[in-house]
This record gives sequence, structure tokens and C-alpha cells, in this order.
Amino acid sequence: MTGEKTIFTRIINGEIPSFKIFENDHVYSFLDINPVSRGHVLVIPKEPAQFLHELSPESSSELGRALSSISKSIVEVTGATSYNIIQNNGSQAGQTVFHVHFHIIPKYPESTHSFAWKTTEIDKKDASELAQKISDNMA
Amino acid sequence: MTGEKTIFTRIINGEIPSFKIFENDHVYSFLDINPVSRGHVLVIPKEPAQFLHELSPESSSELGRALSSISKSIVEVTGATSYNIIQNNGSQAGQTVFHVHFHIIPKYPESTHSFAWKTTEIDKKDASELAQKISDNMA
Repeated sequence: MTGEKTIFTRIINGEIPSFKIFENDHVYSFLDINPVSRGHVLVIPKEPAQFLHELSPESSSELGRALSSISKSIVEVTGATSYNIIQNNGSQAGQTVFHVHFHIIPKYPESTHSFAWKTTEIDKKDASELAQKISDNMA
Repeated sequence: MTGEKTIFTRIINGEIPSFKIFENDHVYSFLDINPVSRGHVLVIPKEPAQFLHELSPESSSELGRALSSISKSIVEVTGATSYNIIQNNGSQAGQTVFHVHFHIIPKYPESTHSFAWKTTEIDKKDASELAQKISDNMA
């Protein structure tokens, strides 16, 4: 960290107001000010990391738990029966605020947004080696 | 649950082979057989729920922790510096296998996939009431 605070750290600190949904020791959640759909919520760690893979185990596990419980409340309150969870890491992946944030985006029958993608056929030889490398690297 | 097993439960059980990345008591992870990009990984709970908001706190927190540690290994092994995390809930949101699954999709300089979206201006009066309702509903 450079010591320069992102807008999300300033929201956590209460220096910038937000439509707050939830807060505990590790997690803060609020409405996205530029929603894709009604009930578009952000869930962020208090730990100021840019990338998901930089977070402590405490932050990442608390984020997972909060994503589930906050989604439950969004579904119950908005009536949306479908929703997307999206979290972008790095400028190339579309990250614009450099503090980890998960989007919960409700999808309504009238919603037009889509996160569809094109898939490819896997290269089985490469896949076998790659899976082994990623797995070994975790040990 | 209807008792009918999804393809992911059969992968967890070893009835269908997979390019396995990681496994513990709560989580299983493997390469997506139809990758968007090289190193496209799925991270799933062993608990057979369709929606993220249906998961137990144990499953959801273990998923959060695993997403972070698996992403770290993917970045280190593939060299990708950006990546997207995506998890779709419900048919309308693009879910095709009805067992919770998070995608980790590396983004390379040459990648053409995009998950960009259109945003709107928030309705501040509605937002204030909605945030309060979602928050109250969690209590």
C-alpha cells in the first residue's frame, strides 16, 4: 500500500457517506451508487488490498460468509430470483477502484444486462499439467 | 434438493473425472472443461445448494478463503495479472448447472472477453429506504 486511501477506505471510515447494508469487524457493505439494477450492492473487506489473492484468510472467509447472508436479504427484500456475483481484479479485468469489492447484482425479468461469455474447448494435455502446477503451487 | 445429482456432485464424488486443483472438507476446485481463458477454474462447495444464499456459513466462508488462495496460485502459475470472479445464481442470471460455482477467469493482454456493464444513476430516496430494508432484514 502506498498510504493513499481509496474511496472505499474513506467510505469505511465514514469520511464519505454510503447507503450502508452491513458492517462487522472485517466486512463493510453498501449500495453501489451507480447500480446496474435495483439492489446492486458492494461487499468489501476492511483490509485495504487491491487483489482478492492478497487478502488475509480472515478477510476472505468473512467476505464469503457475508456474500451469502447479504444475498439472502437482497433476494428476500427485492424479490429478485436471480443474481450475479462479480469481482474484478486488475485494470485489465475492469477494476476501477483498487480496493477489493464484490458486486451483487440482482437480475429481474425486465433486466437487460448480461455477463455471457464465449467458451472454448479445453486442451486436455495442457490442462492436466496446468492443474497439477496450480495445485502443487498451493502446497 | 430433489435427490437428483448435478454433474458437479458427481465430479466431487469422483464419478466423473476432473482436472482437480484443490479439495478440503467443504470445497472442491477444478479446471472448467470449457474455459474462457487458460487457467479458468471453478470453485464449488461440497454442500449441494443451487444458490449462494442457501449455503451454510461454513460452506460460504470456506469458499471465500479458497477463492483467495486458489486465485493466488493461478496468478503465480499462469502469469496473468488480472482476473474476474463470477458466480451466477438462477437461470435468468446465466446459471446452467444448479450447484453453486464460482468462476476464476484469468485475463491476459490478448484476451478479448469482457464483463463490462452499463450503470445508472441511483435514486437516492429509494436507495435510502432499500438499504434500510435489506439491513433490517438481516437482523
